[in-house]
Amino acid sequence: MSEDLRKLFDYIERNSNSYVEELRRFCKQESISAQKKGIEECSELLLNMMKDIGIKGERIRGKGNPVVYGEIKGKKDDYILFYNHYDVQPIEPLEEWVYEPFSAEIRDDRIYARGVADNKGNLMARLMALKSILELYKELPIGLKFFIEGEEEVGSPNLRSYVESMKEKLRAKGCVWEGGDKDVRGMPQTYLGAKGILYVELRINTAGIDQHSMYSTIIPNPAWKLVWLLNTLKDDKENILIEGFYDDVLKPTEEESRMLEEIEFNEEEYRRNFGVKNYLLNRKGLELLKALVFNPTCNISGIEAGYTGKGSKTVNPSWAMAKVDFRLVPKQKPEDILGKLKAHLKRKGFKDIEIIEHGYYAPAKSSINSRIARVTIETSKLAYGQTCKVLPITPGAGPMCYFTDLLDLDVIGGECLGRPDSKIHAPNENIVIKDYIDCIKHVSAIIMRFSALS
Amino acid sequence: MSEDLRKLFDYIERNSNSYVEELRRFCKQESISAQKKGIEECSELLLNMMKDIGIKGERIRGKGNPVVYGEIKGKKDDYILFYNHYDVQPIEPLEEWVYEPFSAEIRDDRIYARGVADNKGNLMARLMALKSILELYKELPIGLKFFIEGEEEVGSPNLRSYVESMKEKLRAKGCVWEGGDKDVRGMPQTYLGAKGILYVELRINTAGIDQHSMYSTIIPNPAWKLVWLLNTLKDDKENILIEGFYDDVLKPTEEESRMLEEIEFNEEEYRRNFGVKNYLLNRKGLELLKALVFNPTCNISGIEAGYTGKGSKTVNPSWAMAKVDFRLVPKQKPEDILGKLKAHLKRKGFKDIEIIEHGYYAPAKSSINSRIARVTIETSKLAYGQTCKVLPITPGAGPMCYFTDLLDLDVIGGECLGRPDSKIHAPNENIVIKDYIDCIKHVSAIIMRFSALS
Repeated sequence: MSEDLRKLFDYIERNSNSYVEELRRFCKQESISAQKKGIEECSELLLNMMKDIGIKGERIRGKGNPVVYGEIKGKKDDYILFYNHYDVQPIEPLEEWVYEPFSAEIRDDRIYARGVADNKGNLMARLMALKSILELYKELPIGLKFFIEGEEEVGSPNLRSYVESMKEKLRAKGCVWEGGDKDVRGMPQTYLGAKGILYVELRINTAGIDQHSMYSTIIPNPAWKLVWLLNTLKDDKENILIEGFYDDVLKPTEEESRMLEEIEFNEEEYRRNFGVKNYLLNRKGLELLKALVFNPTCNISGIEAGYTGKGSKTVNPSWAMAKVDFRLVPKQKPEDILGKLKAHLKRKGFKDIEIIEHGYYAPAKSSINSRIARVTIETSKLAYGQTCKVLPITPGAGPMCYFTDLLDLDVIGGECLGRPDSKIHAPNENIVIKDYIDCIKHVSAIIMRFSALS
Repeated sequence: MSEDLRKLFDYIERNSNSYVEELRRFCKQESISAQKKGIEECSELLLNMMKDIGIKGERIRGKGNPVVYGEIKGKKDDYILFYNHYDVQPIEPLEEWVYEPFSAEIRDDRIYARGVADNKGNLMARLMALKSILELYKELPIGLKFFIEGEEEVGSPNLRSYVESMKEKLRAKGCVWEGGDKDVRGMPQTYLGAKGILYVELRINTAGIDQHSMYSTIIPNPAWKLVWLLNTLKDDKENILIEGFYDDVLKPTEEESRMLEEIEFNEEEYRRNFGVKNYLLNRKGLELLKALVFNPTCNISGIEAGYTGKGSKTVNPSWAMAKVDFRLVPKQKPEDILGKLKAHLKRKGFKDIEIIEHGYYAPAKSSINSRIARVTIETSKLAYGQTCKVLPITPGAGPMCYFTDLLDLDVIGGECLGRPDSKIHAPNENIVIKDYIDCIKHVSAIIMRFSALS
């Protein structure tokens, strides 16, 4: 390791207690976007923390929750753009938390707090990396920009218009997304893209009130109609039957397939974690990983009609609904898929179906050869002792497309913080403190080395 | 009208206030079988009321709630058997009741109480008919037996064994079921049979916990499996696809078809009451009535999986379930249909389906030419001013089979009390007071005339 980074890592180690305290201070401020709790307070706290470090910050107010934006110049007149969000998921079910979700308790080697793994820990790791460089070297080698939204946990409904209105401001040489994580063996991994999503709710209404089920011979049952409808969307071989659904799917490149071969997918570990009986279509090993990363989905996230309580009640329901989410892969376009879904339903004769759109965004993918990808991967070994693995696409969805497509930026997931048992979106969310300190080191190395790369 | 009935009807009119008070007293005693509330108290109250009238009564205790049994001799050593139940449905949602469900409030021409239409009003009408004959004529022309169960509202799970153990005791010349009702125009109607039922819950479990929906490419989604399964049970032309399902269905006789032609099915009234947009398969008029009365069903009473709250949450559910009820027509046998369902699922390759049986009983049908049917129909005009219409089978289900098959009895629905807006099983259950008094007259005429019929 070169002298400048060795010194920097030492400095980070020496100051780790205060970096942990800064993170705890930030986690103690609730910021639940779904329930509109603490958004103003959290965005103000964040802005002040950024200003204290020396970042020129402001709150940008458009529709929805404000974006916290900040920038700081470096020696070179180029910028790296960091994307994060300051909002967190709701805390329910509260009774399952061992510690108060906004107390940021430390137990053994971990910090427990809502949002600490998703993604307040990443955000603070970035700010602390910047702080440590400034304190030690007085100047950054390159400028940094921070785009921190407050609606990621509710599907980023206004992100597109924020990004569009800030296009000039957000100019940069590369973008680091909200963060990578560690796999079941503790291996760091990050990613170059994210699936898109299209989330619709299909509702069928046949009567004003539920009726005694004896009327099911004369009044249509919306649950049956929904079953027949859904059955036309996907068959039991997992083929999605919407005409043209696969038209725009880009086949994975050879390089992308090779990237997966380097990643160990521990199917037994997953089986245990999820209590899975059988994998889909009896897939195994690399097949599973390929399906997870490369396949688009048509998934029933929820379905409901009629009586769902204990025991028996005979009813012909008045309505039925299904929540269906599609995860889209490059180059599928959500607007196009929605249009194809509507055409499909029409063609199949399903009338009077209410389609509620719960949001969508496109998939995104960057090259592993971009400068921001290379510097992230190359510096990872310095921070974690091993080079991070890279997924071409994270199986989850994220609104990365606004940065790749609207801003024409290369994007990479970033530093590797969370673990499989970090309980993201669930009670007892946590991170390992050492992982947080390692992430500060990783981000500081990215900042120090970006400009040096050809 | 003959002198003896004219006198009797006058007597009933003169005493109607006290008959209403007896009914209110009975309705004020809760007796919710599903929640085990007031069962002992109500069966004791009923027994005492019967004894006060002069009936020799007892509580028969087997498995489940006790049966209240009573008998009283008549001039002739024959008996009519009355079937009723003293239990009622739960009162939830309580906030929708205008009056307390067990206050038996009188407003305008109606009594409001849980159970007053189903079927405490019928039971009391029968007891008051008997009381009025005894008070006026000191003796009954024929003996009466009362079989009053306490579990009808939870599917009569122990009825079969009660009836089997009381076979000798229940010997009679005919049986009157729990009561007919009035149609949308106020026309009295009763019935000669009831559909059977088979109620199953199908459960599919694929994992120990719900997962993020990104895993839906590798972990099976039970909601999809359920959709594919249900799709094999019925097609969108309403054909039930279980092999052999229709094998034992008796075609309606010409006489039964003619009976329906005499009944006006007011499709516009039903459409308004239920807020129905379109009838099933665009059926109209008599077609609707025929489907309602003669068709067996395969109905989804409930379906649930995954996230069913507001907005969007992406999840691959760990379980899915559907509650499916089959209404069976003569001579379908529920055990046989259950076997055919299981064979069907096996044949179609659906494994690991948990089938929970929530109960079943067979359909039942009696002849319109039986003495109990003829006397009920002939005397109806005296009580209501018009002869009651007769359905060969009520579209609802009822455990009538134990009386037709085990006791070899002819059965008819009986006096016509409830109305389409009586809100059976719903908040603000009610009856029209005049209908109750008319029912007392009808039952008293049945008792007075049964023996006279050849």
